[in-house]
Amino acid sequence: MSLIVQKFGGSSVANPDRVRNVARIITETYRKGHNVVVVLSAQGDTTDDLIEQAKQINPKASKREMDMLLATGEQISISLAAMAIEAMGYQVVSLTGWQAGMLTNSSYGSARIKRVRTERIQRELDKKKIVLVAGFQGINKYDDITTLGRGGSDTSAVALAAALHADLCQIYTDVDGVYTADPRVVRGARKLDEITYDEMLELASLGAQVLHNRSVEMAKRYSVNMEVLSSLSGNPGTKVKEVVKTMEKSHVSGVAKDKDVSRLALVGLADQPGIAFKVFSLLAKSNINVDIILQSIGRSETKDISFTVTREDAQRARELLEANRDSLGFTSIEISNDVAKISVVGAGMVNNSGVAAKMFEALFNAGININMISTSEIKISVLVAERDAERAVQAVHDYFFSEFGSAN
Amino acid sequence: MSLIVQKFGGSSVANPDRVRNVARIITETYRKGHNVVVVLSAQGDTTDDLIEQAKQINPKASKREMDMLLATGEQISISLAAMAIEAMGYQVVSLTGWQAGMLTNSSYGSARIKRVRTERIQRELDKKKIVLVAGFQGINKYDDITTLGRGGSDTSAVALAAALHADLCQIYTDVDGVYTADPRVVRGARKLDEITYDEMLELASLGAQVLHNRSVEMAKRYSVNMEVLSSLSGNPGTKVKEVVKTMEKSHVSGVAKDKDVSRLALVGLADQPGIAFKVFSLLAKSNINVDIILQSIGRSETKDISFTVTREDAQRARELLEANRDSLGFTSIEISNDVAKISVVGAGMVNNSGVAAKMFEALFNAGININMISTSEIKISVLVAERDAERAVQAVHDYFFSEFGSAN
Repeated sequence: MSLIVQKFGGSSVANPDRVRNVARIITETYRKGHNVVVVLSAQGDTTDDLIEQAKQINPKASKREMDMLLATGEQISISLAAMAIEAMGYQVVSLTGWQAGMLTNSSYGSARIKRVRTERIQRELDKKKIVLVAGFQGINKYDDITTLGRGGSDTSAVALAAALHADLCQIYTDVDGVYTADPRVVRGARKLDEITYDEMLELASLGAQVLHNRSVEMAKRYSVNMEVLSSLSGNPGTKVKEVVKTMEKSHVSGVAKDKDVSRLALVGLADQPGIAFKVFSLLAKSNINVDIILQSIGRSETKDISFTVTREDAQRARELLEANRDSLGFTSIEISNDVAKISVVGAGMVNNSGVAAKMFEALFNAGININMISTSEIKISVLVAERDAERAVQAVHDYFFSEFGSAN
Repeated sequence: MSLIVQKFGGSSVANPDRVRNVARIITETYRKGHNVVVVLSAQGDTTDDLIEQAKQINPKASKREMDMLLATGEQISISLAAMAIEAMGYQVVSLTGWQAGMLTNSSYGSARIKRVRTERIQRELDKKKIVLVAGFQGINKYDDITTLGRGGSDTSAVALAAALHADLCQIYTDVDGVYTADPRVVRGARKLDEITYDEMLELASLGAQVLHNRSVEMAKRYSVNMEVLSSLSGNPGTKVKEVVKTMEKSHVSGVAKDKDVSRLALVGLADQPGIAFKVFSLLAKSNINVDIILQSIGRSETKDISFTVTREDAQRARELLEANRDSLGFTSIEISNDVAKISVVGAGMVNNSGVAAKMFEALFNAGININMISTSEIKISVLVAERDAERAVQAVHDYFFSEFGSAN
């Protein structure tokens, strides 16, 4: 007998019909002879509604009380879903984060799971019950309720799957799985049968918001087999695992774009040793994540450094650097938001140096200028003008995935 | 330094303005140098909304899952109120039933409080924090969430006051206190400064729905000083305690009516020993509470027994008796709903046998027929025709309380 952990997001339980649909999926899995542990998010807009109520009362409410408030959303979901499963004649029990033994640290609003005390869940499974667990929440050493922040329910599910040594962790969403590119935008985008953790991590960070990185990182660390699938279509989804069967054959698993990018250029920096270190440690200390970095070469005593950050961080980065202009010694700072990042991701890439060349060729043929380039073992990213982003993704995707003339 | 427990009902926290108002009352009490522990109900219609949602999914949901669902209502209230108090610059912490140590038995939906483990609350009070506790809820020995049923938050407050040896337990409602009669209906109804537990118990059971009997019974058992007052007016309320100062002077503390009454008459019962016992033990076994009983005397071999029950129970009582007609041996059963019960309540009554006579005189003067009579140490009840109920209350109230010609 195997153990399956299933997670359903907020839109999957948004109304009574959806709740019944989720109950059907859960009980079908149970009827096949599996032990089933289910993680649920808060219904639809519940969390946003609660946040709105809190803002009306205190826009600067403590995170401890916010967590106390928000944790009710998932508690409502699990009890309603349990009632739907009861109505279908199955034995079921719902458990809050603390009842399910989700022990976290005390970072209210963005708590990390430290340990899962599985005794209670195990006891309920032994009684042949379907177990529903409130996602997104846990309890700290003071017996106070914590929430895990964005993507928290995915993380709850993976943590439970790891702690219970589950055979599979199914993440049900409103998409069918992971695609080679955003299927709403890119013609010919195909669903992947499987993908590695690392590829998934790169794709998620590039705006393919199917799974949150935090949960994938945890799945990778504990070797949890994941599957991303739709709660509505009933189709098989995409498996996320350490090594995928088709890895040898395919070099590229997806093409993604990310418009949440700003480019900053520091012009006229003194060409002295350690200057790059100074710039980027300054930014790191303020928790500003830098992505692509380009440093000019040559040109007498000064040099330029360009780098990208998220748009939210751009202004803060500029102010920080301006405030340190004397010690850094540069002429000017330029910010550009007219940029987008296009990336190809593929675990097989490291063994095939031709991928970068093919990507550049695809962009050249489409008449798109490349601005900056960054490569890692499983990813090649380029910066293009924002207006070219969609065309760039399509061109690169066509090049690697189109049936006629695939370069793969 | 004294400790005050305050309880606010659902209408007192129904919207952000009300929540802020409650926060003001709490912090004013705190500023006067008191330790303050506050019990809150769910906001306005929250509980009813949750019940409605549950019904749509499963009209026969288990009580365990209903409690899991309903307990979220109070959790929302305490976190929002905590935020309002934070905004006013005070140290505060909200605690769910289980965090506050409210240990109950496992009667989901109508759990009884077994013990309050006060360590956590005491620790927070020692840190000079205002402590907010979710009313209506607790936890059983399985670590499952329970709710206390109707009047649960009042009971939570009294239980906390008893366990913490509080100096006062203030129950804030939307009325000013306890009146000599329903002030919306009876001219000249006056607010009482104080009232005994026993009087309060009789008045509550007679439809003066200010406090639930369960909480008053607990307050009496543990000698908790209660006060009923309004969260909106700011006026002093009514104190509920063991012995009241004015007891010697006044014999009657209130006049109440109760229309939730049906009268059943068993006609032609065989006049054999133990027949009354047979009838009423039969009803008791089915949890049907009988109130006033009248047994005819004389008349050859048969007799009649009349008694009152709540309207909800009347039909069930009839069916039960019909089903046992052979063993009981009666001719017919009659049900009448055209009745109402009028009562005068007063702890001093026992020492003043004239009260009953005065009540009957008042009704006689008003031309109202008395149907059945029942007396206890602190209460005299009579059954009148339903259409006479309002007039009867006014007449009796006038007689005991009107400034001109008070018979008191």
